[in-house]
Amino acid sequence: MSRSVAFIGTGIMGKPMVLNLLKAGHSVAVHNRSKPPLEELGEAGAVVCGSVAEAASRAEVIITCLPDSPDVELVALGEGGIIEGASEGSLYIDMSTIAPNVSKKVAGFLGEKGVRMLDAPVSGGDVGAREGTLSIMVGGAAADFEDALPVFQAMGKTIVHVGDNVGDGGYVKIANQIMVGLHIAAMSEALVLGSKAGVDPKKMIAALSGGLAQSRVLELRGPNLVKGEYPPGFRIRLHRKDLRLAMEAGADLGVAIPAAGQLYQMFTALLAADRGELDHSGFATLIEDLAGHRVCDTD
Amino acid sequence: MSRSVAFIGTGIMGKPMVLNLLKAGHSVAVHNRSKPPLEELGEAGAVVCGSVAEAASRAEVIITCLPDSPDVELVALGEGGIIEGASEGSLYIDMSTIAPNVSKKVAGFLGEKGVRMLDAPVSGGDVGAREGTLSIMVGGAAADFEDALPVFQAMGKTIVHVGDNVGDGGYVKIANQIMVGLHIAAMSEALVLGSKAGVDPKKMIAALSGGLAQSRVLELRGPNLVKGEYPPGFRIRLHRKDLRLAMEAGADLGVAIPAAGQLYQMFTALLAADRGELDHSGFATLIEDLAGHRVCDTD
Amino acid sequence: MSRSVAFIGTGIMGKPMVLNLLKAGHSVAVHNRSKPPLEELGEAGAVVCGSVAEAASRAEVIITCLPDSPDVELVALGEGGIIEGASEGSLYIDMSTIAPNVSKKVAGFLGEKGVRMLDAPVSGGDVGAREGTLSIMVGGAAADFEDALPVFQAMGKTIVHVGDNVGDGGYVKIANQIMVGLHIAAMSEALVLGSKAGVDPKKMIAALSGGLAQSRVLELRGPNLVKGEYPPGFRIRLHRKDLRLAMEAGADLGVAIPAAGQLYQMFTALLAADRGELDHSGFATLIEDLAGHRVCDTD
Amino acid sequence: MSRSVAFIGTGIMGKPMVLNLLKAGHSVAVHNRSKPPLEELGEAGAVVCGSVAEAASRAEVIITCLPDSPDVELVALGEGGIIEGASEGSLYIDMSTIAPNVSKKVAGFLGEKGVRMLDAPVSGGDVGAREGTLSIMVGGAAADFEDALPVFQAMGKTIVHVGDNVGDGGYVKIANQIMVGLHIAAMSEALVLGSKAGVDPKKMIAALSGGLAQSRVLELRGPNLVKGEYPPGFRIRLHRKDLRLAMEAGADLGVAIPAAGQLYQMFTALLAADRGELDHSGFATLIEDLAGHRVCDTD
Repeated sequence: MSRSVAFIGTGIMGKPMVLNLLKAGHSVAVHNRSKPPLEELGEAGAVVCGSVAEAASRAEVIITCLPDSPDVELVALGEGGIIEGASEGSLYIDMSTIAPNVSKKVAGFLGEKGVRMLDAPVSGGDVGAREGTLSIMVGGAAADFEDALPVFQAMGKTIVHVGDNVGDGGYVKIANQIMVGLHIAAMSEALVLGSKAGVDPKKMIAALSGGLAQSRVLELRGPNLVKGEYPPGFRIRLHRKDLRLAMEAGADLGVAIPAAGQLYQMFTALLAADRGELDHSGFATLIEDLAGHRVCDTD
Repeated sequence: MSRSVAFIGTGIMGKPMVLNLLKAGHSVAVHNRSKPPLEELGEAGAVVCGSVAEAASRAEVIITCLPDSPDVELVALGEGGIIEGASEGSLYIDMSTIAPNVSKKVAGFLGEKGVRMLDAPVSGGDVGAREGTLSIMVGGAAADFEDALPVFQAMGKTIVHVGDNVGDGGYVKIANQIMVGLHIAAMSEALVLGSKAGVDPKKMIAALSGGLAQSRVLELRGPNLVKGEYPPGFRIRLHRKDLRLAMEAGADLGVAIPAAGQLYQMFTALLAADRGELDHSGFATLIEDLAGHRVCDTD
Repeated sequence: MSRSVAFIGTGIMGKPMVLNLLKAGHSVAVHNRSKPPLEELGEAGAVVCGSVAEAASRAEVIITCLPDSPDVELVALGEGGIIEGASEGSLYIDMSTIAPNVSKKVAGFLGEKGVRMLDAPVSGGDVGAREGTLSIMVGGAAADFEDALPVFQAMGKTIVHVGDNVGDGGYVKIANQIMVGLHIAAMSEALVLGSKAGVDPKKMIAALSGGLAQSRVLELRGPNLVKGEYPPGFRIRLHRKDLRLAMEAGADLGVAIPAAGQLYQMFTALLAADRGELDHSGFATLIEDLAGHRVCDTD
Repeated sequence: MSRSVAFIGTGIMGKPMVLNLLKAGHSVAVHNRSKPPLEELGEAGAVVCGSVAEAASRAEVIITCLPDSPDVELVALGEGGIIEGASEGSLYIDMSTIAPNVSKKVAGFLGEKGVRMLDAPVSGGDVGAREGTLSIMVGGAAADFEDALPVFQAMGKTIVHVGDNVGDGGYVKIANQIMVGLHIAAMSEALVLGSKAGVDPKKMIAALSGGLAQSRVLELRGPNLVKGEYPPGFRIRLHRKDLRLAMEAGADLGVAIPAAGQLYQMFTALLAADRGELDHSGFATLIEDLAGHRVCDTD
């Protein structure tokens, strides 16, 4: 079931997502602030558009994949934005990670124009985007989710309709980032403690993975600590942005999240130490600093 | 390779471990402070002894499985204890979760009498003890580990020799408890936040388990939060005891463990609220209290 | 040196500040969203104006005292706001507690119109406002500070020019709120611990005040804990708003503030428990809840 | 009312306390593990004794001033200790900072021998000890407090009978150390934030001291941060020992002390960074490290 899709925001995530949409047989109109990725996408078969509204006007499904809440607000509701170009009955899917409150607000304004909306943030990083194996957490009406499914299937593997309200995807994404961040903190404290006591961190990871302490973070990111190398999968700078969303969501909802709150402060310290471009598992370097000990120096 | 084993401490963990040793063909002499479990073990083929020293004197391998550091110190080094009964050349294995410093001290005194020692704390709970599927984290000399392997194999599944020093098993166990506790905290903050926002917690667990937020805690204990029921697998009271060991180890080693430190305070609050006998995933009730919202009330 | 002053925002703080300005011989034009306080001020000699711009147009010095950053932005820069009414060369003083970044932005736009600006948040609460004993923390050019001094002296006692940049007053106010909040937390943990151990809290306060633990918070707010009564001086709801500014300032500046971060989460829990209207020393009730013990129940 | 006093533990605190007792006309028998201070005290008029029991046997009032709980336990209850030397009816005063539980235990054993006990930890540091201006927090029977008053008055200025149970003095001392530590943390976060924003820290201290943020810590220790110099009044290493007592007391009493718990972890980091001999206000260096900014570099 091929669709006409408009895709706004063809950065490190968006560009490979467009390529996967094209590969799956959808037609795609693209727009982006910076031009280089558009050329490549044009050669791959996408229609390059000069404005958001133009791209939106050609599509049944309009997708955005942008850095932060204000970007989405501008592209969706601003002058020359989706609200001006989108046809009545079209479906807008925001795949950015933004504040759920902003998603709800955007959905409200677009709804008045007869444009339906889903929020559908992803996890899985640029690797998942390239390989079409993203996890997609979708909030919005069940019928709209069904409608969007062929499009999601071109980009992701685990696709879950988490709730009937726009913004529900965002809440689950925030929950995801809290958990991943705290799993990294847990691993960091555990491995720094054990290795400063003299235990081989590789053996610790083996032993810990066998029981209730197992986590995907330990399996996939534990080796970074052992090597003392943090090539960016997902960057500290971006994870910290998502934790800011967590702080706001907790405050808005009246949910105290003390462990995440502590984590947020430590991410601030990591940025102040110019480590924002490390992989988020580089959080361990802060625990190492505080202990005066590097996991990779054990043995 | 059947061995003669002495086993001190036949409580909720120790008793099924003895039964598995017997089943595997080892001969077992048992001693315990309270008598009821001894009768059952006697009927199952164990030799019931009136004192620690008597049990120890009959065995190549002497095992303890006791609540806390002072208990091990007393049974190992006290009057009528292992130090008096054990033969030169015998092997002492402490499978309790205690302070690594105490393990080292006990090993020192026993070593002077020619008794070798391993520390080998376990995880997996009473279910793992019954089913013989415990994870066993072993610290001590490689030769002693090899020597003990047939005995470990009767009780556990994942058996890892984590380091060459007595106490290394304890450090890994402490690391394990830090990670498990923080994974529970992470899950609690994530699910309380999402469910207070209106998202179905079962769908959240499904979505979160598909990606980097996956953990065994989320899989095995997440359903407790959904139901609002916390039947004890591993009790808050015991987990808090282990976090006290983490506090001491961190202070002794010079490793700041801020997330675990915060967790420890919250476990104190749970005990003050008379929830010490809940499963450790009942930690979530504290985050729920602070939010004025129960995960199980969503929907 | 009597001045012509415009005062926007005559709420619980602003109204008594205007009365003190009048008492000191300044002429005051007032505007407020809700009308009742204006009547009283009119009777006291103020000129009631129908719009912000109208009030601003009559004054050498324009003062705002408003709840939060968006309010100041709207009143200063919005349609019919100060930017439209104020004469070139006039001096705008914002005495609200808002984000320093917003102060800087407002100063920038007004500067283009030839309007000078100071940011001058206060502490001392409604009592300080009524008695003219506020502490005023002023950021901006030294000449502008000198110019404003007669006006400040009508409202406050401790008047400090903390820095030459607009926003510096706000940073000091944020620092003030961090310190006051943490002093309350310190007092709460100390008194709950001691009183649950059985020590009389009044005697504790006496002993603690005599040494290095002394703080004005302990002297002025300690008795609230002893009585278990929290009549609002400064409300939890408002203190939490100020801690949100602290979170943002810390993140923007790259300063990790872990103790304040933890405090912020606890203030969220207090709001979730419907205690936002208590005095901020009511923070103690959260520590009391966690301990299952009330300070006022000792003895 | 001159008394015969035995004084055990004549270190940096104890020695000047003995000198003040002598100056007030009391006769003092002294004992100490290391000999140098005893010579000086002998010359000043004290009777130097070869053992604890010998010193205790000569005195109506026996005072100890020792580093930690095990020291007190040994000197009071060990072989050749107070329990052997003290006469029935004599009064034992422990002025060390130790675990209240240990104080209670010691009081129990001594009580069986007819020796009364007070616990009376002090604050005020070596300066207060020299100048006779210590704050003394006394727990125990009112009659015993009255009996001891002339002795206390020779050493301290603020002398408060905080409770009728031995150990109450210790709880108040722990409360004191929690408050002082958190006041230092509060000051550190506030001054690092403000000064990284560009505000002059001296002006901040002036402004903050004028209002509700005032604390003795800010007045006496704030200048250390401004200069970036931390000459030891009270050392980080010792403050951390006292926070360990706080951790234990909180756990024993069932009082969660989250802010103190976080502080304790940071003191561990300071020791790991070899800053244990700095004044406790040197805590600020950790917040400065995390911010990549020194308060003393502002301006």
